[in-house]
Amino acid sequence: MKERSYRSQAAGNIPVDLVLTHCRLVNVLSGEIEENASIAICGDEIVGIGADYVGKETIDVGGQYVYPALMDAHIHLESTKLTIPEAARIMSRYGTGTVVTDPHEIANVCGLDGISYQMDAASDNGRINVFFTVPSCVPALPDPQVETFGAFLGSSKLRLFLNHPWVIALGEMMNVPGVLMEDEKVIRKIEAFLDAGKTIDGHAPMLAGQTLNAYIYAGIDSDHESTSCEEAIEKVRRGMDIMIREGSSERNLDAILPAVNDGNATRFMFASDDLDPSDMMRRGHINHLVARAVKAGLSPIRALQMATIHPAHHFHLYPRLGAIRPGARADLVIAEDLVNFVPTSVMHGGVFVFRDGVEMPAGRRVPRYLRPAMNVRLPVGDELAVEVKEGSQIHLIDLVPGQILTQETVERPTVVDHRVVADPERGIAKVCVFERHRASGAFGIGFVRGFGMKCGAMGSSVGHDSHNIVVVGMNDADILRCASMIRDMSGGQAAVLGDKNETLPLPIGGLMSPESAEEVVSAEKRLDVFCEKELGVTLERPMAALSFMSLPVIPNIRITDQGLFRVAPGAYPQKISIFD
Amino acid sequence: MKERSYRSQAAGNIPVDLVLTHCRLVNVLSGEIEENASIAICGDEIVGIGADYVGKETIDVGGQYVYPALMDAHIHLESTKLTIPEAARIMSRYGTGTVVTDPHEIANVCGLDGISYQMDAASDNGRINVFFTVPSCVPALPDPQVETFGAFLGSSKLRLFLNHPWVIALGEMMNVPGVLMEDEKVIRKIEAFLDAGKTIDGHAPMLAGQTLNAYIYAGIDSDHESTSCEEAIEKVRRGMDIMIREGSSERNLDAILPAVNDGNATRFMFASDDLDPSDMMRRGHINHLVARAVKAGLSPIRALQMATIHPAHHFHLYPRLGAIRPGARADLVIAEDLVNFVPTSVMHGGVFVFRDGVEMPAGRRVPRYLRPAMNVRLPVGDELAVEVKEGSQIHLIDLVPGQILTQETVERPTVVDHRVVADPERGIAKVCVFERHRASGAFGIGFVRGFGMKCGAMGSSVGHDSHNIVVVGMNDADILRCASMIRDMSGGQAAVLGDKNETLPLPIGGLMSPESAEEVVSAEKRLDVFCEKELGVTLERPMAALSFMSLPVIPNIRITDQGLFRVAPGAYPQKISIFD
Repeated sequence: MKERSYRSQAAGNIPVDLVLTHCRLVNVLSGEIEENASIAICGDEIVGIGADYVGKETIDVGGQYVYPALMDAHIHLESTKLTIPEAARIMSRYGTGTVVTDPHEIANVCGLDGISYQMDAASDNGRINVFFTVPSCVPALPDPQVETFGAFLGSSKLRLFLNHPWVIALGEMMNVPGVLMEDEKVIRKIEAFLDAGKTIDGHAPMLAGQTLNAYIYAGIDSDHESTSCEEAIEKVRRGMDIMIREGSSERNLDAILPAVNDGNATRFMFASDDLDPSDMMRRGHINHLVARAVKAGLSPIRALQMATIHPAHHFHLYPRLGAIRPGARADLVIAEDLVNFVPTSVMHGGVFVFRDGVEMPAGRRVPRYLRPAMNVRLPVGDELAVEVKEGSQIHLIDLVPGQILTQETVERPTVVDHRVVADPERGIAKVCVFERHRASGAFGIGFVRGFGMKCGAMGSSVGHDSHNIVVVGMNDADILRCASMIRDMSGGQAAVLGDKNETLPLPIGGLMSPESAEEVVSAEKRLDVFCEKELGVTLERPMAALSFMSLPVIPNIRITDQGLFRVAPGAYPQKISIFD
Repeated sequence: MKERSYRSQAAGNIPVDLVLTHCRLVNVLSGEIEENASIAICGDEIVGIGADYVGKETIDVGGQYVYPALMDAHIHLESTKLTIPEAARIMSRYGTGTVVTDPHEIANVCGLDGISYQMDAASDNGRINVFFTVPSCVPALPDPQVETFGAFLGSSKLRLFLNHPWVIALGEMMNVPGVLMEDEKVIRKIEAFLDAGKTIDGHAPMLAGQTLNAYIYAGIDSDHESTSCEEAIEKVRRGMDIMIREGSSERNLDAILPAVNDGNATRFMFASDDLDPSDMMRRGHINHLVARAVKAGLSPIRALQMATIHPAHHFHLYPRLGAIRPGARADLVIAEDLVNFVPTSVMHGGVFVFRDGVEMPAGRRVPRYLRPAMNVRLPVGDELAVEVKEGSQIHLIDLVPGQILTQETVERPTVVDHRVVADPERGIAKVCVFERHRASGAFGIGFVRGFGMKCGAMGSSVGHDSHNIVVVGMNDADILRCASMIRDMSGGQAAVLGDKNETLPLPIGGLMSPESAEEVVSAEKRLDVFCEKELGVTLERPMAALSFMSLPVIPNIRITDQGLFRVAPGAYPQKISIFD
């Protein structure tokens, strides 16, 4: 029930709380810019637009552009390594007003507790609206013989969220074969959310033809995995709304933007998926994608529609969100141009959270900690040693530069004292994955080429999707030292050389930090510098590469706490020995 | 839960029920025409699009265009004077697949029974999907001293429909002052439907500025009453979706179409509001509006989007309706060109209801009759006589050609035997309204100019909105004869001259006929010819003019069963005497 006084303010019978005057209003409904408009605001809502409102308070925005706050249609907020209030602080600076987050990472580690934790962290952050999709595929492969996972979300747990007001969709349905082969468990999850009136987020890289039809027929109506114009166009033709994904690792904007035209534009929106804190602080958030779309030739209004009213329609959040109109939340961006889309001020629910270039204090709560998610038993003594097998060659994980794919190669081993060892001359490092959920003591060992590491070790408790501890190193002592540092700080990332080290503690699920974005970014930078200068690492973003080495659904060769696996496209992972 | 076999058909694992090949598919999602497409259909659903489907049955459409069945966003189906199965028979011929109907007329006569009757009549008509909006303003003016009305729908009755699966909105909110003045009863109705996740249809002629803002702020998000381009554009800017209304009486397409452009097109759709059966049979339905929009310069795809996916989005019926895509209902139109939009075949839920120009039999049910809605006590003897008042002039209702507005004029009376009488020389007829809901015997008398009637009488039990019996005539005997004929046939329209007459019985609520469209249209034509040839009527569509004479919310002068009323714009009706 709306407040009676709000209606009277809308009708102009009594003065409104606040009027913004001299706005260049970007009207995403009519596709125009309205010159010299006034926006009347009451409480957290817009109540009217027009020159004739009288305000208790009046702010002259001096002919600046005013547009609706931007929306990220799909992001794993854990990828920012920040708590939600802290990520929100940076995002809102860039004009983001709403994100749809899929708490897939924390759910893989902590299950329901992880999802609730993110929901609690999101609530009352005071800067952005956070809506949730419920992770549909936790774990990625529910087989403990492939990988020890931290949590399992079956459809009985997913159903708990069916009528949750912050949940707007079932999260990205990565189990494409399960959908196509009509796996009852998968179908049940989808049907439950459809019946509850929610949408189903898709995840359909390269899907086309009949399999695409069947996937859409099952009820899935969006996708953020298109990597080419043709792929995006086919998906739009068949009924998907396309999230143009441009994150830190996966970047598809340039490839997909040419697909957008006047006849189909309503089917497109923007998403980050995974976003490093340093990228976010340096280049911005959705505003950066809007600016790039405009630079690439899209009209500013069209680009803003894709960042506002299109996702709002897709998720049925319009008319509350997505446009500047009576009855919408007063989530507004004020900016001097429609080129860079860098706000001078940002309003969230009628309150300035960023004003004239200065961040305003918001009711930021330090979130309650989750129960520590590090439960590790590390090997002692010589357990990491790999005894040579006479006459055999070894399977090597070869990184593919710029991609998360890997290549399986067979090479002769470097042997010292009858043991296979890392070899800086040949660019070969040892890689270990240590189970961290149930102190089982399980670990896997392999060899990897592509980091360019010369000495020491580096490791991370961010290791998709089960997030066991992944460590790459040149000797067993440093590898174990690195793993134990990560354990002792309740999760995080570390680089070690003897008694020298750098760390980034991520005590929230082993994924996120309770510290400020500035501190996290500077710790990340110190880590990168240490890896480069002290360990000789030549790979760019080595921690990102490390975090994908254990994802057992990406070809061609992966390592988990259960050992080395060959992953053929579309096939189930097959355990292999280090030796050929 | 979808059928397992449907999924397998979508995936191409088993042959699909039916494939339409060589389609020029009008893709309203991607805004393109896909040449040489195949559409795979299983049961009542589209399961896939693509050349590689194998069908149990294959139909080659020979390069004809295939587009989604059209949608009428707002119509009072009672205005067709046909039962819903019969109206559907004609509409589906023209490619209509879905209508959103507001049973406002039958609700004014029969209340809940009337709404349920239309719902029952709609169900399983086998040709079109019928969704309902619940009439928000029954009666138009809830004051028995202005008019005797047949039913009253308060918010407790409206709430019965909140979770009804066929109800998608609260019907047109005509009580604009009630919204603006925050009448608790009006606000409660709106809030109840908003809380239930339904939309609110608007009715906001000429509303602008702050009052428009306040009306939209209250939660109303569509309008079909715009009569100018500027009016439509302002409403779009403020957040309304615009139904371009082109019915039999009110026609706004030419005026509003220039408002549509690439930036705002998604906000527009088409509606009929009131549609005579003869207009519908002669010119078509929504296809006629699409054709005219294309003739006026809109691209065929854009015009079809406005008739399909735009209303489907507005009413949250997409993706089930509004586009040709996996998972949508197989409601399809096949046509040879995108100029006239005259179908060669029409499919409804996978079944041809019209094929190669021939109507297919459908499970048409003769609807159950409503309890008769004629409860009339007519005056006897001399009661209709108007004794002259010496020295006084009379208030005359002057018709305004081509509009439903009327003009109040003061004239000297024509007097015979001390009684004021109709005068063919001066073009003045007598008009009476007889109460028909509760046999109260109430009637009102006035004089009207503009029918050009010379003798006899004509009358109708269609008389907006309370639908009492309205009769215009040149002498009291024919007036009473006409009224009693209407009573005796349980409602309808009649023209009488002595013992000669023509009739169109409308026994369903006094508004609709159980007969076929052809019979109704030919009876209408006989009536019109009788009025013209026998009674000398010169006005075009005299029955339509008659039916609006008693609507006490339209300026400037109206007649009800309670007498003559002056209606100033925006003011409450004021009772006046015949004499000045």
